[in-house]
Amino acid sequence: MKIVVDAMGGDFAPKVNVDGAIDALRAYADLEIALVGPQKLIEETMDAYQDQTAAKAVRSRLCVVDAPEVITTEEHPVMALRKKKQSTFVVGMDMVRQKEAEAFVSAGSTGALMAGAMFKIGRIKGVKRPALATLLPVPNRPLLLVDAGANTDCKPEWIVQFAMMGSAYMRRVMQVEKPQVGLLNIGVEEAKGNEQAQSTYQLMAKPQPFEFAGNVEARDALAGQVDVLAADGFAGNVLLKNTEGVISLMFGMLKQGLMATTKGKIAALLAKDTFRTLKRSFDSTEVGGAPLLGVEGAVIKAHGNSNARAIFCAIRQARQMVEGGVVDLIRDEVGKLSVDEEDD
Amino acid sequence: MKIVVDAMGGDFAPKVNVDGAIDALRAYADLEIALVGPQKLIEETMDAYQDQTAAKAVRSRLCVVDAPEVITTEEHPVMALRKKKQSTFVVGMDMVRQKEAEAFVSAGSTGALMAGAMFKIGRIKGVKRPALATLLPVPNRPLLLVDAGANTDCKPEWIVQFAMMGSAYMRRVMQVEKPQVGLLNIGVEEAKGNEQAQSTYQLMAKPQPFEFAGNVEARDALAGQVDVLAADGFAGNVLLKNTEGVISLMFGMLKQGLMATTKGKIAALLAKDTFRTLKRSFDSTEVGGAPLLGVEGAVIKAHGNSNARAIFCAIRQARQMVEGGVVDLIRDEVGKLSVDEEDD
Repeated sequence: MKIVVDAMGGDFAPKVNVDGAIDALRAYADLEIALVGPQKLIEETMDAYQDQTAAKAVRSRLCVVDAPEVITTEEHPVMALRKKKQSTFVVGMDMVRQKEAEAFVSAGSTGALMAGAMFKIGRIKGVKRPALATLLPVPNRPLLLVDAGANTDCKPEWIVQFAMMGSAYMRRVMQVEKPQVGLLNIGVEEAKGNEQAQSTYQLMAKPQPFEFAGNVEARDALAGQVDVLAADGFAGNVLLKNTEGVISLMFGMLKQGLMATTKGKIAALLAKDTFRTLKRSFDSTEVGGAPLLGVEGAVIKAHGNSNARAIFCAIRQARQMVEGGVVDLIRDEVGKLSVDEEDD
Repeated sequence: MKIVVDAMGGDFAPKVNVDGAIDALRAYADLEIALVGPQKLIEETMDAYQDQTAAKAVRSRLCVVDAPEVITTEEHPVMALRKKKQSTFVVGMDMVRQKEAEAFVSAGSTGALMAGAMFKIGRIKGVKRPALATLLPVPNRPLLLVDAGANTDCKPEWIVQFAMMGSAYMRRVMQVEKPQVGLLNIGVEEAKGNEQAQSTYQLMAKPQPFEFAGNVEARDALAGQVDVLAADGFAGNVLLKNTEGVISLMFGMLKQGLMATTKGKIAALLAKDTFRTLKRSFDSTEVGGAPLLGVEGAVIKAHGNSNARAIFCAIRQARQMVEGGVVDLIRDEVGKLSVDEEDD
């Protein structure tokens, strides 16, 4: 299995991408990686890897593909993809399109990743809109939110597809046998919500190739009731970002409060393990990146501030997506969906 | 100033409503209260008030208005209002409509409160849709979210009105001189978001009788950047409920984590004050209830699980709304809004 890794994505490129790639090759003997980016820079970075003996041992499974151009997060995605034919995105995604590789991992521009995946790799036939999925670190029951922000004006039918794709991912990557799918709404009753949510509920309640568990209120989103939370990308993004914001605010206030007094400082010392466990359970590094579902390849968006460990996890996740045949399953199930309308 | 208090609203009626009303009369000498509900029951509850001397001292400013019927949260709001002419909602709101009272406070059904306010008290001329506002307990800078869930399919013009009404409330009730108004969106740039958010941004950027501070991402909603957060009621409700959910989840996990070890238990003891302060800063009791903005009276929805203190705070809040002339200000400013369309 070959995975393309964008050496130039994220805030700490190329080092964390190169390190994460070598780490992944050391961990998985069946893996081949193509690092795309400026050749000389990548080779120099490889030479700086901490364990050169280990790096040499996996060198035969690592190739460097020259892509001298870089698309930044400030650039307009579609324009940049058109102009920079030698960018890591264009060169790397072309490899997936040509079936030279099965997956693409990048910590770079989300917009360029999505646009590139749409236009270079291509949608799975029947999928209306690819969606960005994010694992929310719910204690004891990870929750996949689809769409996390790729599509801001959704038709109900698209959201039904998000549900199916999320269910496929949870089955094949997270080994959840029958993922329960909830619809993000502002009440649990069938008739609650805006027009979009009401129509989506009606469609989801039909026989579908996934288990629909009804509406889920934002208050209960992290309560571990479901495995997949289907949402319009606007509301989904509000939920995701607000969750991150509240968690970070509370940790900040807790720290500030404890550090203000001597008693508090002692308490903080004693509670160190608990705080660390709590922090880790909300840490997204270990769950990897955000899979883009609905395109003809395993595409993973890693956080822009990823360290080598996060890149390693994103590569591991791409490997699981390929091994689990998520793309094939989505291709197979998109035809089984019960929907009302026919549009494009 | 006379305020109507629904004696039968909420989970702990009538006791907390009667107690809260008497407490408010004791605190504010300029206040008169009409308690609406089953007369005999209310009088019995008054007789059970903890301090009978104090209760007698304010008795001349307290009247009981008989309303033997109660509308529950399970009933269909509009149907119930039509059928139960002797309900606390219908009787109490009629008093506001007839100018016998200036405000209405209830911990009962949100739906009945909103529908009743719309149809019994009536919209302020020019206001397209009344909106429910909620103060989010952001540390050091309370944030008013409008709409918190009353309107699920909003036109951009309505959201501009929510912004103006929220700004009026913050000026006159919270004494914020020039409230900064943000638009809830999934990115800070002008062109971000769904069609609704983009159009709303364009309208808000015109000269308006409030200070528009641009888009605010959900991640920063509680970061204290603005005083008013204008939103579609669907996204606003997702934000509100998710915030409550994450806070409660984190407190739960923290407690569970600390209680699992002896060291943790000691830490919890030492950090008791910090935890209490933190908990209180996220507690909504003190901020009162949710004002319904855009109708011809000060209408406050108190939490269903309000205790006497929360009812007291909601009455205090209604008093501030009346004293600050929020309704007059909204009536005055709705004509000054710059909007594109003319619709109803």
